[in-house]
Amino acid sequence: MSNTVSKRIPETVMKKPQQSSPFSGTGPRLRDVGECVMIQRIRSLLGKVNPPAPHGIGDDCAVLPVSTELASRTFGLATVDAVTLGEHFLPDTTPELVGRKLVHRNVSDIAAMGGRPNWALLTLLSGGDLRLEWLDGFMVGLRDAAIQLKMQIIGGDISALPDGLFSAVLCVHGQAVTPILRSTAKAGDSLWVTGTLGGSLVGHHLQFNARVEEGCWLAENVSVSAMMDVSDGIAKDLTALLPADTLAALDINKIPISTAAMEQAQQQRDLALKAAFCDGEDYELLFATPPQTVDWLADWQRQFPHVPVTQIGTITKVPESATSTCKLIDSQTGQALDYFKGYAHFNT
Amino acid sequence: MSNTVSKRIPETVMKKPQQSSPFSGTGPRLRDVGECVMIQRIRSLLGKVNPPAPHGIGDDCAVLPVSTELASRTFGLATVDAVTLGEHFLPDTTPELVGRKLVHRNVSDIAAMGGRPNWALLTLLSGGDLRLEWLDGFMVGLRDAAIQLKMQIIGGDISALPDGLFSAVLCVHGQAVTPILRSTAKAGDSLWVTGTLGGSLVGHHLQFNARVEEGCWLAENVSVSAMMDVSDGIAKDLTALLPADTLAALDINKIPISTAAMEQAQQQRDLALKAAFCDGEDYELLFATPPQTVDWLADWQRQFPHVPVTQIGTITKVPESATSTCKLIDSQTGQALDYFKGYAHFNT
Repeated sequence: MSNTVSKRIPETVMKKPQQSSPFSGTGPRLRDVGECVMIQRIRSLLGKVNPPAPHGIGDDCAVLPVSTELASRTFGLATVDAVTLGEHFLPDTTPELVGRKLVHRNVSDIAAMGGRPNWALLTLLSGGDLRLEWLDGFMVGLRDAAIQLKMQIIGGDISALPDGLFSAVLCVHGQAVTPILRSTAKAGDSLWVTGTLGGSLVGHHLQFNARVEEGCWLAENVSVSAMMDVSDGIAKDLTALLPADTLAALDINKIPISTAAMEQAQQQRDLALKAAFCDGEDYELLFATPPQTVDWLADWQRQFPHVPVTQIGTITKVPESATSTCKLIDSQTGQALDYFKGYAHFNT
Repeated sequence: MSNTVSKRIPETVMKKPQQSSPFSGTGPRLRDVGECVMIQRIRSLLGKVNPPAPHGIGDDCAVLPVSTELASRTFGLATVDAVTLGEHFLPDTTPELVGRKLVHRNVSDIAAMGGRPNWALLTLLSGGDLRLEWLDGFMVGLRDAAIQLKMQIIGGDISALPDGLFSAVLCVHGQAVTPILRSTAKAGDSLWVTGTLGGSLVGHHLQFNARVEEGCWLAENVSVSAMMDVSDGIAKDLTALLPADTLAALDINKIPISTAAMEQAQQQRDLALKAAFCDGEDYELLFATPPQTVDWLADWQRQFPHVPVTQIGTITKVPESATSTCKLIDSQTGQALDYFKGYAHFNT
């Protein structure tokens, strides 16, 4: 049970030297230049990622380009996520990686629907003592991620927090031909996960790639019945994919544990497994397919040779004899896996 | 020159008793219930304003309803704005009014393009010590404003700040048949403003109505050449409407000063005039029309009998003899009105 804001980040990690902190060190600060100069600086750094007004920064609203082709053949998607100092990054995290993370963690939600991002609005909430050099790095990381993911930053807002605090909120719009929902899995479906899980804090949480190509490929080529991304750990996230009166029967030996989690656990598999279930910030795709739907696996491996995909279990009906309310069980022993908890904000 | 975050709110006002503060007083707090319970509470409070998943809260993204009619005949609009404790409201501000303000200040930007709002995403950034009763009030105010303005809240995010801090960010999507831009005014155009200006902090900044009907009516019935909303005071905002090499020649006697500004200035017109130029948070429409376009005035008065609209001046070419860089002049004396400054974030 914790009531600090930084519990996602262990205290030992919090005590690193803060040479590149957003607020310590020398150089001009946000309050030295004011809002207008800062907006000019941001526009200049964003370059072509920010289209000319009225389609980008510069009017009361951004005017979206009309695309009837898009509207008639695809669904729009909308999502929002923040990065906050102490919760999602540390004072000495490289600012480019913070900007990058903000984009990829939002686009991970778009990817989890089988979609692609289009445009985004950025809100900066910051103390006036923010170093401009740090902000430049943040914007460059955000811009380069936007270029990589083929999306535009079309507007935003700035609001003042007390000194020493920074948060950035990105609202992203995307599109999908056939959005893959969380709520459409069925009993009997196989459960799959991309990549490996656990130990994200070692570096993955700043350097992952939103699984856009993978998500779109699955939506187009596989009869995926439900999909989501893993942000709070599969222990918590898996339960969101389960229909009422079902459990996830998991093959504990097949959970793909990351090298980072194994190293942190000093190769003790039980400890590493707990990390894979509970750490969160994996930003992998978790999805369900109807039973016997495996003919796509060879195509996947040709398409994404460096991205493992693993069947971790099956969705099963809750047996009538069940006594536990736990939604995850060991498929071999039938025992509840209720010591695993995903990340929870504000409390545990 | 100020480097505190609360300079929009005078210190004398900041020292009011804090009986209804978001963080002081008794009752359960955010951290007592955690994220999942809070999201349930928010969904329940929003009611029909939050459509069922996947079109509302509950999946990785919100899926937008397909509307080809909308896409082929109108332009999409996107904007984002925050309300932050100490910057946009006080600890003892009624929470319902804070939620209301967040909606109306965003929709004011949509209205300033001649548009109507469709949907929004809400991000809450808060200390874990936020009282749930305060949050309920905030959500009810936000919900009722969304109902009033015919928009839906389709998703959001929650992020943790240190104790005692609260900010909420709303990203709003809208539509307009013909978006009215800021950048399309011309020399010779008349300058108009709706309502009255100044003294917003007395109450208007919490209780104004976004001028949606007025903005749409102007876009449809008047050849408006440019439009924006007044959020930082006309001293600053007017300059955004002026083409290069032009000035705003203002009839100082015609500036519509609010009763609140006159009362605060103890009926001294010069002081009240400065408030009308500089206070900000008026959320009135500021627009330009080609010269001699006045045949709409009688229709306006029939349509909006309780909303004054005033011609405050004209856009004129910068005279070759000009020595000042000030963009606002007194049309009668030709003198620069350069002692007026609008609200600036982080510095002045």
